[in-house]
Amino acid sequence: MRSRVSVARVGHLATTTADGRPHVVPCCFALSGTVLYTAVDAKPKSSSRLQRVRNLEANPAAALVVDHYEDDWDSLWWVRIDGTARILVSGSERAAAFELLAAKYPQYQHDPPPGPVIAIDIRIWRAWP
Amino acid sequence: MRSRVSVARVGHLATTTADGRPHVVPCCFALSGTVLYTAVDAKPKSSSRLQRVRNLEANPAAALVVDHYEDDWDSLWWVRIDGTARILVSGSERAAAFELLAAKYPQYQHDPPPGPVIAIDIRIWRAWP
Repeated sequence: MRSRVSVARVGHLATTTADGRPHVVPCCFALSGTVLYTAVDAKPKSSSRLQRVRNLEANPAAALVVDHYEDDWDSLWWVRIDGTARILVSGSERAAAFELLAAKYPQYQHDPPPGPVIAIDIRIWRAWP
Repeated sequence: MRSRVSVARVGHLATTTADGRPHVVPCCFALSGTVLYTAVDAKPKSSSRLQRVRNLEANPAAALVVDHYEDDWDSLWWVRIDGTARILVSGSERAAAFELLAAKYPQYQHDPPPGPVIAIDIRIWRAWP
């Protein structure tokens, strides 16, 4: 499970809005031990408090799935992590997360994302099949 | 937005558990007018009341995102629909949904999924960028 998640280029992050509705976005991420980091790519303006961040501020529960699709359904798989999110707006953990993200995604090296980093402390791993 | 969703082979469905936690799974689906249908592939046994179905019975709010990832980040896009789910366990709408799904996915023609169909009445379309 861990190796599949580590090398995946994109995952899908689900959160819950303050009024209990589901929200889902594709996102890039990096894994470090039992923490998964994903950056908010938006420009630094008030609307960079993206919906996913507002959701996690109100309800820190997060789920992220990594999966493989092809039309040969015998080859399908997914791995899902459930965890609790922290929003990092400054500090050494945020800086270390950017280094991890830039090591995985060269796109970040020249254009570091200006927003917060979401750190998800992983509680549960699940896989299918 | 509609054409991108129509032809996509896989989407990611987010729901909310009864205790307010997010849940997300990849899924196949078909679009018909303002309704999106997705089948539950599990074998007919008590555990085929999959988590997504239990969630939607407790809270019918659903979100599904279709997206494209590649390492050229100028080419990224996603389309997300928000809606309200109904669980179809029998009847003509479920039968018509299976026909739609089988027309899109030949895999279903020889092996129709035994479980319920989730019908999501779409309320909101959103797209990025």
